[in-house]
Amino acid sequence: MQHIDTLIHAGWVIPVEPENTIYQHHAIAIHDGKIVGILPSNEAVSRFSARITHRLSTHLVIPGLINTHTHAAMTLFRGFADDLPLAEWLNKRIWPAEKACVDQNFVADGTRLAIAEMLRGGVTCFNDMYFFPDVAAEVAESAGIRAMIGLIALDFPTQWAEGIDEYLQKAADVHAQCQDYPLVKTALAPHAPYTLSDLSLEKVQAMAEKMDLPIHMHIHETWGEIEQSVEQYGERPLARLNRLGLLNSHLIAVHMTQVENDEITKLAVNDVHIAHCPESNLKLASGFCPTSKLLRLGVNVALGTDGTASNDDLDMLGEMRTAALLAKGVSKDASSLPAMEALKMATLNGAKALNIDDVTGSLMIGKSADLVALDMMSIETLPTYDPLTQLVYSVGRDKVTDVWVAGKHLLKSRSLTSLDIHDIMAKAHSWREKVLQAIS
Amino acid sequence: MQHIDTLIHAGWVIPVEPENTIYQHHAIAIHDGKIVGILPSNEAVSRFSARITHRLSTHLVIPGLINTHTHAAMTLFRGFADDLPLAEWLNKRIWPAEKACVDQNFVADGTRLAIAEMLRGGVTCFNDMYFFPDVAAEVAESAGIRAMIGLIALDFPTQWAEGIDEYLQKAADVHAQCQDYPLVKTALAPHAPYTLSDLSLEKVQAMAEKMDLPIHMHIHETWGEIEQSVEQYGERPLARLNRLGLLNSHLIAVHMTQVENDEITKLAVNDVHIAHCPESNLKLASGFCPTSKLLRLGVNVALGTDGTASNDDLDMLGEMRTAALLAKGVSKDASSLPAMEALKMATLNGAKALNIDDVTGSLMIGKSADLVALDMMSIETLPTYDPLTQLVYSVGRDKVTDVWVAGKHLLKSRSLTSLDIHDIMAKAHSWREKVLQAIS
Repeated sequence: MQHIDTLIHAGWVIPVEPENTIYQHHAIAIHDGKIVGILPSNEAVSRFSARITHRLSTHLVIPGLINTHTHAAMTLFRGFADDLPLAEWLNKRIWPAEKACVDQNFVADGTRLAIAEMLRGGVTCFNDMYFFPDVAAEVAESAGIRAMIGLIALDFPTQWAEGIDEYLQKAADVHAQCQDYPLVKTALAPHAPYTLSDLSLEKVQAMAEKMDLPIHMHIHETWGEIEQSVEQYGERPLARLNRLGLLNSHLIAVHMTQVENDEITKLAVNDVHIAHCPESNLKLASGFCPTSKLLRLGVNVALGTDGTASNDDLDMLGEMRTAALLAKGVSKDASSLPAMEALKMATLNGAKALNIDDVTGSLMIGKSADLVALDMMSIETLPTYDPLTQLVYSVGRDKVTDVWVAGKHLLKSRSLTSLDIHDIMAKAHSWREKVLQAIS
Repeated sequence: MQHIDTLIHAGWVIPVEPENTIYQHHAIAIHDGKIVGILPSNEAVSRFSARITHRLSTHLVIPGLINTHTHAAMTLFRGFADDLPLAEWLNKRIWPAEKACVDQNFVADGTRLAIAEMLRGGVTCFNDMYFFPDVAAEVAESAGIRAMIGLIALDFPTQWAEGIDEYLQKAADVHAQCQDYPLVKTALAPHAPYTLSDLSLEKVQAMAEKMDLPIHMHIHETWGEIEQSVEQYGERPLARLNRLGLLNSHLIAVHMTQVENDEITKLAVNDVHIAHCPESNLKLASGFCPTSKLLRLGVNVALGTDGTASNDDLDMLGEMRTAALLAKGVSKDASSLPAMEALKMATLNGAKALNIDDVTGSLMIGKSADLVALDMMSIETLPTYDPLTQLVYSVGRDKVTDVWVAGKHLLKSRSLTSLDIHDIMAKAHSWREKVLQAIS
């Protein structure tokens, strides 16, 4: 008998790798934060002696969901600016509110609120982009969630830094700080092509190469962005980034609602990753990312919620569903983006985009025990012909009962174990007052 | 002091009529199943003496949601046929399974499962279309939910009837049966233009006129339907229905994903109602209904989930959100279909479509007490800048805590009072086995 920390018996397990596989009545063995076995429950009990055993016979267990694009702290702006186009949303609501309110405390309280929401919805890893990444990193570390913290860079001054050189100096500092946080990685996060000059982008690219870091960037979010670039630089943003050497496997291109055929080829050949944010793109009327085509042509497409100020939630189950439904509508083919592909986008493809697929993104022996259990025994999810399509098309995030990150039980029968939910809610209330006062 | 049955104090009330109104700290007074007052809580306590008082200070109360198109019993086919185009979905999966399984028991158990799901999600009224409407009517009546039962008609034989004359005879019988059910109304439900001949449609129209009944019909669901009609009849389905006299205020046209400008004018002038089912249209890749344009040109557009076999849920909160997001994407305008419009589509517009807006669809004195309370105090819904946009963009149906229909408390702190949830779940399980066996 092998002594292990945890044995989780589940009605169904969808490991994502191997693809198109659903195990019934299987157990997942966890030791030292890692998966050490996935095998039939009856075999597991004779092979493993576990300190803790969970019997989740009506549950489906999947890999933890990976949110590849968000601005966690902005959760304090949830519902603050709805039904507005992107430019007005940014210029009249979000930027003034940010200017008035965003500081270390805002980022700490907002990021904590976001992490609480994400864990309760089965998200075990998020790719963030916001000011005070030092604070976000610290909050993620103490909550026990996996995170890639974007080290933001812009050409204009904010509360965080004055100009590109200070942004990049601070980026280096936060990167150094994160070396002490085992679950937190960093990426360089130049905001968007339209907020950085060629010179600044070259500096970002040089730093990314030197430090072997991903680059997390909004690209081709709207048609207006393309027009402006053509006017200013004589080329589309993607062509400009290509000229500056950014189109490579380190790049996580967020949004990409406007993409021509030759650009898709370029993305595929250069192993660029896309973070598709269907709900934010719809809500801001930014355009439709042609996900089915991108996937067919070999581009790695992952999923993100974007910030709650343009969504307005951090619900990756919902995002998976919207991605699958929207891809069918846009491609005019109901067999487009089937359930397995949607789940892959929300897990393994996300891990690939963040360059952590050796660690997470699927349930494989040797990978980290980042996993989610969902109760399939409810009025809303019966009958269960196929737990996979049920997961994508019917299951709401309220069915997430348990979440583990690196083997740690962070959501236990829907209770958060590493966060104080009442304190988080009280702080969200008080920030509401401050935000409203600040912009009144 | 006026003696009443129930007084509900709520943090926020959105009555839908008057429009763009949010009451804070108000109470809703209910007596004999009707709303007798909506007023500030502090005034209510001195004016009303209530047998039962609910204090829902963290809750938002809205009118009950109206699902204007579903096939309730098909909930037993939830997730049975995913990621397939409409024709294959119907011909290879749904129709064979229906042929093998659908009988009185199937409809009773399936409709009960659907009603349980709908009540738990804040739906107080549904517009149904399926076989054995006599059974669906009985189940709705005993559950206490408001319903419009579609009296189905087709040109081909099914388990319910052989040909148009039998369908219409049975329609008359079920209509007579429903006279004893105060919350159940009926509509004629000719399936679609492509499943009824001109002669049959004329018979339906004559009967609708004679009995003053709405007509509930799938129309212009897909491009293929239009092509086929042009080939067979030399005209588009809507033109054909116009020729046959069906385009009037009795008509609830479901789907309408294909609609030209002159058709929109025709729909508006003739007061035809549309039941928009965005998630089903996406999932089956049927096309995009131009909701913003229809609303702008004065067409009454309501919302429906369609059956769970093509959705795969009966979540009207989710449908409202998808409708609002999709309208922005399709119209390329982020201010399209704002939250208030989406809520109206899911409530008052639905009541208008079903011709019951004198009874339900908004919180007005004299209307039936059909209402829903949602808890806004949760990690997923904070902070609350605007309870209306929060409702549409952030609130999941798991936040629905209480539902009243005609003053009866059918969902009480998330427990169903008129339905046996364990029995419903057990039956859903056993139908799964029967369905799989029948088609194997």
